[in-house]
Amino acid sequence: MDVSEVVGDQVTARPAADVNRAMCPSRLILEHVTSRWGVLVLAALLERSYRFSELRRQVGGVSEKMLAQTLQTLERDGFVDRDAKPVIPPRVDYSLTPLGREAAEQVWGLARWTEQRIDEVATAREAYDRARS
Amino acid sequence: MDVSEVVGDQVTARPAADVNRAMCPSRLILEHVTSRWGVLVLAALLERSYRFSELRRQVGGVSEKMLAQTLQTLERDGFVDRDAKPVIPPRVDYSLTPLGREAAEQVWGLARWTEQRIDEVATAREAYDRARS
Repeated sequence: MDVSEVVGDQVTARPAADVNRAMCPSRLILEHVTSRWGVLVLAALLERSYRFSELRRQVGGVSEKMLAQTLQTLERDGFVDRDAKPVIPPRVDYSLTPLGREAAEQVWGLARWTEQRIDEVATAREAYDRARS
Repeated sequence: MDVSEVVGDQVTARPAADVNRAMCPSRLILEHVTSRWGVLVLAALLERSYRFSELRRQVGGVSEKMLAQTLQTLERDGFVDRDAKPVIPPRVDYSLTPLGREAAEQVWGLARWTEQRIDEVATAREAYDRARS
């Protein structure tokens, strides 16, 4: 499906966004939002803003390097706002932009759903493994 | 927070599921559901069941090996049902279980949201890169 846009008196066509197309920009955005740490960072920031070190404690197991990289990617995509306060010692707060809040609400729902379904998944895995042993 | 469960006359306590704990089983489930190909496979199967080769065409860029591995993981977790029909040539259909449908509805929403926001993200990236060049 093509989406046509009228720009001035020019009509330009571009393919509609489609995550199923390997080259669609939406796929890379989806990968950032659903990345291992991206999901957890977005979900955490939905509650409140965090300083870097607080966020690192909140998201168990993330390394300093991976957290910095995740935050930078999310900031560049326009999901996270980085607020460096001109104080000593330096203080940097991370919070969601309105766009990031939209993404975070969805991944938050997914994270909570996962927590609620661990028993069903464990049962399914046992049945799967038993059928193959 | 602890969740207490009464089993017979025993009270056993286990920590509540929490994706922020590195060792919580929910985190691995979340990683399967949000994996690069897991997201796209679940979203595709929300529309209808697929044969392997159809699904591979639908999800652009996935290799045969990665698709097989993704489907196996989702099947083991109880999200995908694999139906091998005893016909010649062999025919295998993949569909969502009720549990998988719950997961798929959430990742489907996320995929559609991403497609709708590519312009906002592109604008944010340009501003980010401009501020740093």
